[in-house]
Amino acid sequence: MEITARPEVISLAGGLPDTTTFPPESFAAQMTRIAQESSAEALQYGPTEGFERTKDVICEVMGVEGMRPDRDDVIVTTGGQQALDLIAKTLLDPGDVVIAEGPTYPGAVPVFCSYQADTRQVPIDEHGMRIDVLEETLDSLAAEGTAPKFVYSVPTFQNPGGATMSLERRRALVELARERELLIVEDNPYGLLRYEGEALPALYELDGGDYVLYAGTFSKILSPGIRVGWLCAPPPVMEKVVLGKQAADLCTSTLTQYFVGEFFGEERWMDYVDDVVAIYRGRRDAMLDALERFFPAEARWSRPEGGLFVWVTLPDYINTTDLLAKALRENVAFVPGEAAFTDGRGSHSMRLNFSAQSEDEIREGVRRIGRVIADQLDLYRTITGEHRMVEPGAAAAEEPSADVLPLRRRPRGERD
Amino acid sequence: MEITARPEVISLAGGLPDTTTFPPESFAAQMTRIAQESSAEALQYGPTEGFERTKDVICEVMGVEGMRPDRDDVIVTTGGQQALDLIAKTLLDPGDVVIAEGPTYPGAVPVFCSYQADTRQVPIDEHGMRIDVLEETLDSLAAEGTAPKFVYSVPTFQNPGGATMSLERRRALVELARERELLIVEDNPYGLLRYEGEALPALYELDGGDYVLYAGTFSKILSPGIRVGWLCAPPPVMEKVVLGKQAADLCTSTLTQYFVGEFFGEERWMDYVDDVVAIYRGRRDAMLDALERFFPAEARWSRPEGGLFVWVTLPDYINTTDLLAKALRENVAFVPGEAAFTDGRGSHSMRLNFSAQSEDEIREGVRRIGRVIADQLDLYRTITGEHRMVEPGAAAAEEPSADVLPLRRRPRGERD
Repeated sequence: MEITARPEVISLAGGLPDTTTFPPESFAAQMTRIAQESSAEALQYGPTEGFERTKDVICEVMGVEGMRPDRDDVIVTTGGQQALDLIAKTLLDPGDVVIAEGPTYPGAVPVFCSYQADTRQVPIDEHGMRIDVLEETLDSLAAEGTAPKFVYSVPTFQNPGGATMSLERRRALVELARERELLIVEDNPYGLLRYEGEALPALYELDGGDYVLYAGTFSKILSPGIRVGWLCAPPPVMEKVVLGKQAADLCTSTLTQYFVGEFFGEERWMDYVDDVVAIYRGRRDAMLDALERFFPAEARWSRPEGGLFVWVTLPDYINTTDLLAKALRENVAFVPGEAAFTDGRGSHSMRLNFSAQSEDEIREGVRRIGRVIADQLDLYRTITGEHRMVEPGAAAAEEPSADVLPLRRRPRGERD
Repeated sequence: MEITARPEVISLAGGLPDTTTFPPESFAAQMTRIAQESSAEALQYGPTEGFERTKDVICEVMGVEGMRPDRDDVIVTTGGQQALDLIAKTLLDPGDVVIAEGPTYPGAVPVFCSYQADTRQVPIDEHGMRIDVLEETLDSLAAEGTAPKFVYSVPTFQNPGGATMSLERRRALVELARERELLIVEDNPYGLLRYEGEALPALYELDGGDYVLYAGTFSKILSPGIRVGWLCAPPPVMEKVVLGKQAADLCTSTLTQYFVGEFFGEERWMDYVDDVVAIYRGRRDAMLDALERFFPAEARWSRPEGGLFVWVTLPDYINTTDLLAKALRENVAFVPGEAAFTDGRGSHSMRLNFSAQSEDEIREGVRRIGRVIADQLDLYRTITGEHRMVEPGAAAAEEPSADVLPLRRRPRGERD
């Protein structure tokens, strides 16, 4: 964090939304209303489950994505991260098996590790988690006499893979959950940030909330600095989650929940989402264009329809953790792919974020990383005696390696 | 929570500060400044360890109580509760022994239980934790071939016991920690809320931060609704705590940390503490007077020099969990003593809070509880045939039972 926070560094590393897009005068007006109308309440402890007003807003947001949760199945959490932590705390004993996507959300890795879970990762492709491989994994676990406590998935605009699970696979996954009485944890921080294509139903909607737990957050549609997220779970799980929440931090900030209530009470929040979507769409396109221009032919990357991230895979003789050290000397940062795996895979991949920087900074950042990669490729060719020159941006022949997302290369000239 | 939140109920149950004392115009001015000067930053993610500005404020607050922590030893947490949770998460494996006071902070009980700790409770008396019993406990654990991972103590204005550990015992405890290489967790949410007597040095100050971890919070000197607390720990522990914090909720709310920065930047926070202390002193006195008037002679209670709570012990044929059900029918609530033990002890004690209600409400609440107790005593006498009448408020002859705080009865007529 410290190095990437240096002002001269262009960080494509974090998962930061651009909070400069939020109008300060709106923020000031909302806070003034809270101070004038409910100062004492906003500064006081709140219920462990969260305020009913916050839950109403959550139901409204989920409704826009087609879900109809029961308000009693909702708990307000200290950001979406705490929702994951509480699920793990509630469901996991040391040694329990968890299935995640490979790559998976880098912030989920330390959660599963901290509860000493045995995490198995099922590969994704451009249509999301490979349900056929998931079934094989479940079968082989059954043969070992065990079963996973839950399957963790980010089905929409996956972090970091950028893929979105197809409708067919969503249906198959929910069906599988019912057949095998398997809990699914659906993490959906980016669902409303779609830049093209049609929205797909959430797993939670398809399942009706029986086997699918759902984690959401206001971080990407309002602010991450308020630390307000949520979890939907059926009553037997929710009872334990509430006890876990009470032990963890008593309740989520009352003040920031009141801010959520005020902001959504203005009924202009979808306009704000539209503004942010327009900005991020331009940044995604700037990143994809820059990758085309500045990354070598050997590289492959995802082309996300939404969300915040592009996943890039380089030739397997390039280690992206080593590459990051060189990139930082060029004042540019990314997340090395190993952070998205529990077993050291991902070492020649990287996650690039396009929401936090301007289009110019994105172009310059990608250009710098491209130059560092080119230096590595030159070095490799010198060492190996391989002098075949590959024109940057030309389509490459090799297949991507099996352990990472098979990535689509955009044909030259294609535009949205 | 739901029953005690009914407006007709006088709740002496919670540990709520009175946030109506905070001036709304000050709140509005601080928030307007944040919106005008740093909206984007305040709405963004922050560092996992917390902002340097927040840590400066924490060092200032601890400085007023005589402590001089190294800023790098401080992490900002989501309330003081999370500090306890992170310590447990970092240090405990299932089955590990933790030593706590008996009674202990009711909110610590689910923390230790959730990490499957084997919690042993050392009794307190009016001078705080019985260090002689602690030594015996350590010896008997050593004989079993084990040692506690840490000793958890609220040495000042203990929740719920109301006792303050004497200077002699503080020195003995710190000495013991050094001799036996024992970690102490000092939880000090109320240290600045002193209504009489001289402040004593914190364990953290006496030890210098080698064996004593320190948990603090802004909940009682500013607002619990902002969920900002902290933990001080030496580097080897802190490294793990930071990882645990990242997994738990990424970072503490930026917005509420900025509010802390603005509020303390006005340099009037000690005036606010003085205001609150004056109000709570009056309420404590109202509660002690009401107990004298309305509770039966058989009852004993603590006489705290600060903090938020009085601990009352009734004859051992009265179960306070049963009594609570009857009290709620009279629209008054308290915390049954069992919540402060991990083993079912405390069943004839109760915790009463005096910070959240006006003096009139406190008097009325205590009167109602006194009436419910009197009914129980009458019933007991009818059943046992014992008809000895005891004048309410008269000094009682019996010794309190061994498992709870030996409580001082204030002689009639004594005043501060």
